[in-house]
This record gives sequence, structure tokens and C-alpha cells, in this order.
Amino acid sequence: MVGGGKNAFIGAVHRIAANMDGLIELVCGAFSSDAANARSSGLSLFLPENRIYLDFKEMMEKESLLPADQRMDFVVIVTPNHAHFAPAMLALEKGFHVVLEKPMTFSLDEALQLQKKVKETGLLLCLTHTYSGYPMVKQARQMVRDGAFGKIRKVYVEYPQGWLSRLSEKDGSKQAEWRTDPKRSGKAGCMGDIGTHAAHLAEYISGLLIKQLCADLSIFVEGRALDDDGNVLLRFDNGATGILIASQVAAGEENALKIRVYGENGGLEWAQQEPNTLLVKWLDQPTQVFRAGQNYLSSYAKHNTRTPGGHPEGYLEAFGNLYRNFAQTLAARIDGNTPSKESLDFPTVEDGVRGMAFVDNVIKSNESLEKWTFFEIEGQGAC
Amino acid sequence: MVGGGKNAFIGAVHRIAANMDGLIELVCGAFSSDAANARSSGLSLFLPENRIYLDFKEMMEKESLLPADQRMDFVVIVTPNHAHFAPAMLALEKGFHVVLEKPMTFSLDEALQLQKKVKETGLLLCLTHTYSGYPMVKQARQMVRDGAFGKIRKVYVEYPQGWLSRLSEKDGSKQAEWRTDPKRSGKAGCMGDIGTHAAHLAEYISGLLIKQLCADLSIFVEGRALDDDGNVLLRFDNGATGILIASQVAAGEENALKIRVYGENGGLEWAQQEPNTLLVKWLDQPTQVFRAGQNYLSSYAKHNTRTPGGHPEGYLEAFGNLYRNFAQTLAARIDGNTPSKESLDFPTVEDGVRGMAFVDNVIKSNESLEKWTFFEIEGQGAC
Amino acid sequence: MVGGGKNAFIGAVHRIAANMDGLIELVCGAFSSDAANARSSGLSLFLPENRIYLDFKEMMEKESLLPADQRMDFVVIVTPNHAHFAPAMLALEKGFHVVLEKPMTFSLDEALQLQKKVKETGLLLCLTHTYSGYPMVKQARQMVRDGAFGKIRKVYVEYPQGWLSRLSEKDGSKQAEWRTDPKRSGKAGCMGDIGTHAAHLAEYISGLLIKQLCADLSIFVEGRALDDDGNVLLRFDNGATGILIASQVAAGEENALKIRVYGENGGLEWAQQEPNTLLVKWLDQPTQVFRAGQNYLSSYAKHNTRTPGGHPEGYLEAFGNLYRNFAQTLAARIDGNTPSKESLDFPTVEDGVRGMAFVDNVIKSNESLEKWTFFEIEGQGAC
Amino acid sequence: MVGGGKNAFIGAVHRIAANMDGLIELVCGAFSSDAANARSSGLSLFLPENRIYLDFKEMMEKESLLPADQRMDFVVIVTPNHAHFAPAMLALEKGFHVVLEKPMTFSLDEALQLQKKVKETGLLLCLTHTYSGYPMVKQARQMVRDGAFGKIRKVYVEYPQGWLSRLSEKDGSKQAEWRTDPKRSGKAGCMGDIGTHAAHLAEYISGLLIKQLCADLSIFVEGRALDDDGNVLLRFDNGATGILIASQVAAGEENALKIRVYGENGGLEWAQQEPNTLLVKWLDQPTQVFRAGQNYLSSYAKHNTRTPGGHPEGYLEAFGNLYRNFAQTLAARIDGNTPSKESLDFPTVEDGVRGMAFVDNVIKSNESLEKWTFFEIEGQGAC
Repeated sequence: MVGGGKNAFIGAVHRIAANMDGLIELVCGAFSSDAANARSSGLSLFLPENRIYLDFKEMMEKESLLPADQRMDFVVIVTPNHAHFAPAMLALEKGFHVVLEKPMTFSLDEALQLQKKVKETGLLLCLTHTYSGYPMVKQARQMVRDGAFGKIRKVYVEYPQGWLSRLSEKDGSKQAEWRTDPKRSGKAGCMGDIGTHAAHLAEYISGLLIKQLCADLSIFVEGRALDDDGNVLLRFDNGATGILIASQVAAGEENALKIRVYGENGGLEWAQQEPNTLLVKWLDQPTQVFRAGQNYLSSYAKHNTRTPGGHPEGYLEAFGNLYRNFAQTLAARIDGNTPSKESLDFPTVEDGVRGMAFVDNVIKSNESLEKWTFFEIEGQGAC
Repeated sequence: MVGGGKNAFIGAVHRIAANMDGLIELVCGAFSSDAANARSSGLSLFLPENRIYLDFKEMMEKESLLPADQRMDFVVIVTPNHAHFAPAMLALEKGFHVVLEKPMTFSLDEALQLQKKVKETGLLLCLTHTYSGYPMVKQARQMVRDGAFGKIRKVYVEYPQGWLSRLSEKDGSKQAEWRTDPKRSGKAGCMGDIGTHAAHLAEYISGLLIKQLCADLSIFVEGRALDDDGNVLLRFDNGATGILIASQVAAGEENALKIRVYGENGGLEWAQQEPNTLLVKWLDQPTQVFRAGQNYLSSYAKHNTRTPGGHPEGYLEAFGNLYRNFAQTLAARIDGNTPSKESLDFPTVEDGVRGMAFVDNVIKSNESLEKWTFFEIEGQGAC
Repeated sequence: MVGGGKNAFIGAVHRIAANMDGLIELVCGAFSSDAANARSSGLSLFLPENRIYLDFKEMMEKESLLPADQRMDFVVIVTPNHAHFAPAMLALEKGFHVVLEKPMTFSLDEALQLQKKVKETGLLLCLTHTYSGYPMVKQARQMVRDGAFGKIRKVYVEYPQGWLSRLSEKDGSKQAEWRTDPKRSGKAGCMGDIGTHAAHLAEYISGLLIKQLCADLSIFVEGRALDDDGNVLLRFDNGATGILIASQVAAGEENALKIRVYGENGGLEWAQQEPNTLLVKWLDQPTQVFRAGQNYLSSYAKHNTRTPGGHPEGYLEAFGNLYRNFAQTLAARIDGNTPSKESLDFPTVEDGVRGMAFVDNVIKSNESLEKWTFFEIEGQGAC
Repeated sequence: MVGGGKNAFIGAVHRIAANMDGLIELVCGAFSSDAANARSSGLSLFLPENRIYLDFKEMMEKESLLPADQRMDFVVIVTPNHAHFAPAMLALEKGFHVVLEKPMTFSLDEALQLQKKVKETGLLLCLTHTYSGYPMVKQARQMVRDGAFGKIRKVYVEYPQGWLSRLSEKDGSKQAEWRTDPKRSGKAGCMGDIGTHAAHLAEYISGLLIKQLCADLSIFVEGRALDDDGNVLLRFDNGATGILIASQVAAGEENALKIRVYGENGGLEWAQQEPNTLLVKWLDQPTQVFRAGQNYLSSYAKHNTRTPGGHPEGYLEAFGNLYRNFAQTLAARIDGNTPSKESLDFPTVEDGVRGMAFVDNVIKSNESLEKWTFFEIEGQGAC
């Protein structure tokens, strides 16, 4: 693990998620640029002293020299955005698979380099878009893919949070600090942090690609350096349209990611804060309440739960699903087996590239006087 | 009453709403251009033969000749959009107050003429934007006005319906027929029918005016002549931003008008399908569930309910509130009294003008390649 | 109308409900034992002076002497419980049909006398158990009756309110005063006032009869004279079991009547505070959300709505349904037609007798040391 | 771990829960009475061959001979009810702390023996009443304890499930098989399996003890040997009353444990299927929606979450909380520290004894013709 020392929120989440199913063991780490923090973090995680490293370069170097059955199998990178690329690239170069926090990199250019390297090396890269790990998101995607709703016409995705309603970055909140700092977060604030989740979810469930967008970003809190809010019109490659809302100044909201998709015959609605329920709506028939853990669900949904219906699973389990699918795919590869199609279903470097391109295109649209900006991936043309 | 013969949905709704509180009595009508329907409609409503008219001109003419204590006090117009203007104008000319269905007219120009006539005559005109008649909408508006949430930053308003997901206008649905016919509905389909409700509600609750917008309208159902869907970015006069979504092809939705407004300290959420609940959200404090009929509500909310908490009131009561407030205002005027501030709170010709301007501006934006269209009222400049 | 003068809650509700569909006209009244109140109430309701009576005896007498086409068709009685019997009996004797508030009478004996008189005269008596007037209650009953769930095993009905959590009857609340006064309410407080609603709803939807019960009533508020709370075990005539909870000291609850019924294959759930939704649950299939106003509903549900799906109807419309069905049945009778089966579906004197017997049996069980009390109707044996 | 071999539901849940926070490591196991299953279960859990035992006696014996820093610290017992006592007693005798599935034992007598042994040895015993591990349950308990609602008057607890609506025990369901088998489950079916959870939750949150009860148990599915449903009236030691419902034939329900508690000033409502929300109701003030992960919660609620608000935690995390609190208490003891009051908050042998007494008293009441059965713990008198 790179990053995730004491008091880092997402590092602890990664460890719980990776731990959950007993498939993964933490064997080493470079937890902090602060040596004392790095060491004490490692010790509190029961690591032996010689597997606690002071920086990721040392870690990659030394681990790669260990015998195959002792060295780490893959690296988890949970540093702020600006510090994703270097360790990820080095890991790939040293032959390690990678699990990486989103947004994948600091810039689209870095993302494209990683994509190239992944192709070259054939190694696995898992991007932790947690929300697509929920079983009812899998169910939603599968129903759309199966054509249950006919051709998709509408995608509404929204992600309101309220935690940056005040200038918390000047109030001692570490989380707020780096997420609103252009040097660590990149071009975008809210749109990079949560807009990318929303965009990923929209494309993941609908099976469509964003083709054009029209963005209106704002900085509502005086003194803030990056956008804390944005509204975006979307047009998809099949002619569907929609909106994407992301805000960190929707005071009183927690983490209210929600998506609705409508086709010719019906639609669906899923809200992250009640993740075990998927509303399935039909023209002229009663809405159905699909519930996680039930027999009538698709193999993808079933594969991604651990408990029977009515035993709610949540964010950590969704996160665990990414790790489990990644680990099962990796284990199959190590053992020379074919991974199941359900295991292969985790976000990859391609999703990371689209995420970074989303950020670029949203920023570009926001600065433009023209209504529509084509969703282009720099150097590759439109989607 | 003009229009509202047998099988006309909204005419019956108006009669129930007007009846509800025992303040209003139906005394005459020109219910249909079909003489037999007009007559049988009138008889089934217990009208005497001599007060059943064959067209609105005859009605206005003859009623205006009756002694003051016998003739009707005001006219209700519930015809399709293209047939609003002529009877409304004639009524005003003949000295009758008017209750009018929304959107107010067929075109902005007609709306401006009505506005002028209302100013000249000093007569009352009530526009039936039903949804602003709900008590919890009143409560929401009052809390925003009282500054409970600080400066408003975000307004999300959405109005998904699914009933036009198929080409019902070719399938014998009268409702679908005229609402998708440019000759009867006007320039806009979905945006005129329900988009205007959403825009009115957004401005009513937030106390803000839409200043700029960016619209993307669609016709999803092949063979349809008017928009059946639209997504709109909004910018308000105080710097707040937001979105307005309206759709009649969100298959599986009924009449899911919903609004969320956020300020610096909190926000609120109201959904028309569960209208007796208003969620009030706070930064760092638990969300509160405000409920219709409770003592802690504002005078505006209390004035607009008839029953104690837990006895749900609905759409007809909200509609009845428009009529009741209009009737109380009218009665006060007739009696030479000052109406209460709560009674004066019903939509007027000004709201009608803004609604028609909304339609014009949305259409204009949709056809434009530029991102932003200023919300202008033709001949009056921007808001 | 007997009772329902100014400031009487339920009288105004009756008038709105009766008014709603334009089928019923208020023609006379004896609104209060206080002459001034009676007169001013009548005038404010636009009644002519000669149809405002000072007591119900005068009203029955004088109305019965009017020509058939001028006199009232039926009497509505909305006085406190102890003053139901006398006017109802006199009305029946004078040949008037009756609409009566529940619980039907002060004592079971009175109820049995009314039942006998109704049988003798062949007149109609409608008991206003409002909650069975909701369209989704009709839907629930019909689905059970159609065998959708197989044999019914469980009935859970609950009715928590909080408004008597304090000694409001000593605090100037008129409503609290008479409802907690044994001289006006009868043997039971909470169980008569709302327990009877719950019992009626349970039998109405399940189509079963309570056969045995075991009650534990309480007076939680010191100084109160009648029960303000009760828990009851139920056994039904087909072997189903269940519970009935009613409370007026569930602080923070409004009027939270709710019922769940389960059979071999599934079940249903309906809550009065969100009355347009009926949850239909299935073994191994997703729960379905049935909604008022939809095409897929039974003829009974459809008959009892006025608006399309998504336009919420509420308590007043449910009340209006009782009046409408009663009026349609009465009109059919007057016209010599057969009323539709949907119109005939309103609570009658039989329901009133069972309600009074419920009160008696609950009180008896509460005082008994034996577990089970048979649901007996005095003089008639067990159900 | 004793029990929990392949295909055993609850064993896997225990392992995830124990794993979650990185405080506990599985070091050995006697997973199955079937040797092949035991071995393959152990290997798949990465245990070395010499720590995979064929029965719990061998395990206790051999582990107790290992050096203190190598042997297991505590035993987890996840066998069916009839096989709880022997390994638990042996573990205590050998000096191991114990984590035990509920209901604690096969009979009250066994429970009392364990209680005695725990007292003698001073060892820790944690009973896995999962549902009291949820953060919002901790919040509820703390608010009641702090007197927020005044004196408690009402406790409604319900636990409907539908999974035994058919005779699944004859259909190859292992779970159904042992849970409906008196030889393995004990005297009670539904009441032992889930009624004990409901009773524990009611006492845990209310801080009250059940003093009297009146039970009506049923076997609805023909051919079943134990109760699959029950309704119980409750009286608590402070005068509060309530009901407890548990059913496994509420067709269409999943795991719908829910509790409501009302005091003089307000009440609360918590439902296990949406566990991150606690509704807090007030007389004359809006209901508040308390949410897990928020700053305004008590130290007990905060201690039992891992993620910020809006990142839902679920059943596995609640289970993990039991393990974490137990492990923290154990670690403090090993290190000679005082555990925090929040860590000490896990169910113990006392709760297990009350659970077994609940089963006995419910069965006794069900068989009695008298209304009230005192909640007695055999040999100890009433509570």
C-alpha cells in the first residue's frame, strides 16, 4: 500500500475492503512521507519492520527483489490525486499489478501514459470506482444490457454532497484541504472528486458513452480555488439525453449519489444511500422493488453479495467487491484459469482514461460560450 | 365555466376544487363547442337550461345583462391553450374576474395583452398553477423568505412523467391529442405543459428569478410534433444555479414533480406525490420532517389546510386552495375589506406572463448554438 | 345535519366530503344545542333561516312535513357518541336515511336497536369508517378476496397517535375533552375512538371476522378517565392470528393507521398517511408498488378515485367516497335502478354493531384474567 | 472457530465480521463433524494443517498446550443451538474466552451453567446479538438513557420474515432443517431464532426489563414441528407496555426487524433494513432523521462506525462491531488497561440467560390459559 497512513480516510477503507473476504493480505507498505507516521502506521497494522518502507520507490525496488512467493502481488495506491501516477507507473514497470484510487491521475496525459503501459505489460489495473461495485448497480446494468427497458432515452445522475458548504479547507479539515487544492487535485474540484463517479456510473449502467456535454461549474464558497459545484447537460452516443449534477455545497446532503435511467418501456432508480434497493418502473405496470440478496437477481448481482436478503450490505462491501473481483481475476491468472465473467467486472484503466477525459471536457465546456462540447479524449478524437 | 364538458379531465377537477370549501357555486357554463355535450354537461351539473350557453360569447353577453346579484362573479376557463385568450379577454372586457388554466395563453403576445387588460380593468386573474397551492410549498417558500437557509445557491427542479412514452396521440387519447398538437398547445409540448409548472415552482419557492437558461429539448417518440422532453440549465438573478428537468417519456413515472433548494446553511426537498411532507435539511444537524397540519408551521401553510396532521390532503385540496384564496380575496373586495396576506397568495397574470416567456426562451435556447439565453420578456428586456 | 356547528372538526369534514362530487346539497341543519351558534353556523353555510333548526327533533318533525321534493333526503349525524342514538332513531322513524359518525352509538344495546330499526324500515344507514373509503384499501380487499395471497395467516393492524400524550382535556382542547369523557364517549376512550377503525379495517380488508381477543388497555396519562392506549392479540375465524395496536400516547405520531396482511403466497401493506400506495409483497418475487389512479387496479379502486396516478388524493376524498357511494346507492333506489356493486360498498349498520361489540369485548377482555375472550355480540352469541 | 464449515451461512459471516477491522486473526478451527469438510474448510481459509482440528475437544486440548503467544485467545462457536453448550463450557474450563452465537444454549439450564462458569472464571463471553451492534441502535439506547423522551410508555418490536412460508425443511434447505428441528433448535422455533433478537433489542434500547408477557404462538405450515410465528403482549418493569411480533411466515418479508419506543415527550423508530437512519419523533416538533456517521451523535454511535455519513454500513459492520468491541475489551485486559465504556458495550452471558428465559416464558405463556405469565428465570424468581 502506498499512502493511507494514520488519519487518512480512504486508506483505512481500502484495508477493510481488501480484508473482507479473506482473499488478500497486507504484506508491506509505504504509508506516509512522514517517516514516523509511516513506521507507526505499519506497526499498528502488524507489519514486520522490514516490510515498512519510507517511500514507494524503496518499496517497489525491494519487493521486486524478493522471491516470487514472498513479494507482494499487487500495489494499492491511495495517495492524493497528484501522487497517483509516479507509483502506479513504477509498479507497472516493476511488474506489479495495481489497484488505484480515482480519479486515476492528475491529468489526462498521465492517464494515457498509464493506459499505454498497462497495454504493454499486460498487467491488471483496478480503479476503485466503488459505486459500481454495489450488487444492485450490477443488476441495473444487466437489466439494461438485457434490453428490459428497450432503447434508453434518459439518464439522470446526481451527486449532491454538502460537506464543503463552508470554507473547511481553512478550518483544519485535511480532507477538504487537498481536495480543493489545484496542485494536489488537478484541474477540477467537485467534478474530479465526485463528478467522475457520477459519469462512470451513468456510462456503466446505461452501457452508453457520453458524446456531448454542456457544463456550468461554480465556486460558491468564497476563497475556494476549485469548483465546488456543477450542472451538466449530457447527450449520449445512442441519442439519449440527460443531466449530471454534482455539488459539494448542497447543505444538508451527505453522499446522495443517485441515478435514474429510462427506456421505451420502463426505467430504474438507484440511490447509494439505500443501496440494497433498486426500483424498477414499468409503463402501465406496478413499480417493482428489487432487493439485494434475492434469488430473482442476475448472476452479477448475486456474485457481489455475501448475505441473504434483508441483511443490508453497504459501502464497504461494495468496495470489497472491487477487491474481490480483482483478486479472483488475479488468482485465476496466477493459477492459469479463466476468471468468471462476474469476476472480470471491475473498473479498469480504460475507465480511468474516460474519467480524466470527462474532467478535461467538463472544464473545457465550462469555459466555452458554445453550447455543446464533444467528449474528446485528447489525441484520440471523439468517443 | 368555459370548457370542461363531459370527459374533459381538468374541468371536473376545477369543479371539485371550487366546490370544496362551500365558497363558490357554479351558476352557468359554456361547456363545449358541441351543443349536445354542452347541454347534457350543464344538466348533469344541475344548471337551469337558461344558464347553459352554447358558446362563451353568448355566455359573457347574457350574463353581463343579468342583475348584479344574479350574474356570475367570475369566469373559469378550462379549454385547451389556444382557446384561453379569447374568452379571458372578453370576460375582462365585460367586467368579469377570471380563473384561467395554465399555460396562460397560446403565445407570449396574448399573455402580454391579457396582462395589460388586467392592469387597465383592475380585475382579478387567477392562474391555476396548482402545485404552488400545497401547504408545504407555502411552508418552503416562507422558510426561504425568512432566511432560514441563508443565501440560496442551488435550485433543482424536476418533473418526470411517463404517459407520453408511446404515440398515444394516434391511439385515441384526447389528452395526448391536443397536448401534442402545435395548433392547440402552442410552441412547446412538454415544456409548456409541465415545464412551466416546474419553472413557476422554482421561482415561487426560491423567491428568485431565472436570469439565463440553456435548454436541450427532444422529441423521443417518432411521429410526435412537439417536444416530449427537455433538460435545462438555470442561472438565477442572485447567482444561484440549478437545473430544470421535464419529461413525458420517463416511462414508469406518474407525476413526479419534485424540488430541492439549498442555501448556505441548509436546504429543503418537496415531492408532489407525497405532498404533506417537507424535508428540511441542515448543515451538521439532523434533517427535519415538516408535516402538513402541524402547529409549528407558518401562517401560510396553516391557512392552506383543512385537517389536522396525519389526515393527508392532496392535489384536489391544493387546487381548492387556489380557489379558496381567490374567492376570499374576491369576497373581501366585494365586501370592501382587505383580504388577508394568506388569501392574496395565488398565481396571477404576472406568473402567466413569465410562464409564456419561459416557453419562448426555452424554445429560443434550444434552437441556439450559444450556451446561454437570457430570460427576456419580449418588448420588456431581461427580467 | 345534526351537530357540526362552528369549531366542530368533524362537521366541516363531512360537509367538504359531501360537497365534493356535486351529488349532495346541504338543505337544513340543527348544528348546535346553543341557539346562537346553531343560527350563525347555518347562515354561514348559506341556509335559509327557516331550514336552520334549534334541535334535531324540530328538524325531523318539520322536514317530514315538507313535500317530498323539498325535504331533505337523509340526515347526517356528527355529534359526540352519546348523542348519536336519539337523532338516528328518530330519523329512521320519520323515514329518513342516515349517515352516522362512528362509533355508531354509546352502547352496544343502542347499536342493536338501530340495527333492528334499519331492518324494519329498509332505510339506508351509512357509518363513516373513513379509512375503508380509500381506493387502495378497496384494492387490498379485492386482492385478498380474489385469493391472490392464498389463505390469510396474519393480520397486523396498528393505529398510533400521539395527541393525547398530555392531559389536554384539562387544557382547553374540546376534542380531547369529550373523547376522554365516559359520559360522552362511552366505555372506551382510545379503543372506541380509533381501535374501532383499526378493527373495522382489519376485517374489511382480510374478509375475516375476529373470533377471539386478548386485550391489555392502559391509562398512561394521570388524571385521565378512559383508556388512552391498548394492545390486543387477535384470532380470526379462519385460524389467522394477529395484533391490533391503538394508542393516543405514542408521542410524535400523527394518525399512523397501518395494516399488513399476509397469506400463504404474499402479503400487503397499506399506511393511511401515504394512502395512494399499496405495497404488494410476494414470496420470491419483487415487491410491487401499486398506486392509486392506475389502469391495472380493480374496478373498486378505480371507482373510488377522481384523478389520474400521481395526483394524490387523501382523507377528504376517502370521506367523499363514502358519501358518493351512499348517494349513488340512494339515487339508484330513488330512481328505481340497481346500484353498482362498487356503489354499494360503504359501511353499514352491521359494521356499526360489530364496532360496538368490539368495544365491549375489548373492555371485557381487559378486565379478565383469562387469556382469551370470545368476540360475542350480546344476545347473539359468538361471531 | 467451532463449526462454520463450507456452506454454513453464519460461519462465513463471523469470519468477515472478525476480519473487518484487522484486530483478529483466525488461527485454528474445528469446522465440521465431517472430516473432509473440516479439512478443506480449514485449508481454504489458509490455516496450516496442524491447526485444523477434527473436533472441538481436540482443538481445546491441543491449543491449551501451545505457548501463550501462539495459542488462540478466544473461541468462536457457530454450531446449531444444541451444540453450543459443550464447546463453550470446555473453552471456559480451558481458560479461553468465548464468542457464541445466539440463542446462547439449547436450554435455560445450560445457560445458567455457563453463566455460573463465566462468573467463576472471570473470562469474557460475547453473545452475538448482531442487531444491537448497529450504531443507530446505540444512539437510540443512549437517547433513552439520557432521558430525552422522558419516562418510557410504549415499546413495539416486530420481526417479520417470510422465508419459512413453505415447508422448506423438507425441500433440502439446510438452514430450514435445523432451525425447525426441536432436537437441534430447542423448545422454540421462530421465538428462539428471531424472537430472542427482538426481545433483546427491546430491552437493550428501552433499558427496561420484560416483567410479564402473554404469548400466542402458531405453527402455520403443516408438517412443521416448531412454532413459525408468534404474537406477544409485553409489560415492562416500569409500567410500560408493548408488543413483540415475530414471524417466519410473513410471506414477502425479508428480515424486517423494527422497533419503536415512545416516552412522554417523543419516541424513536429504527428499522434494521435501513439501519443508518433513526427517526426521532417529538410531541409538537418535526421528526428528526438521525443518520449514522454524523457529528451530532453520541460517543457510542460514533465508536461503532467506520465511515462518514452517507456511506452506508450494514449487517456485517454491525456484526464487526461486536467483534471489535469484544477484541478491544480483550486487548485492554491483556494489556492491563481499562477498556473504554464504548468497547464494553457488547452482549454477554447475562443477555444469553435472559434470552433463554424469554424462550421458556413464552412457551409457558403460550401453553397457559391465564393471561399473564411472569418473566421468571427458573431458580431465580422474577426479573
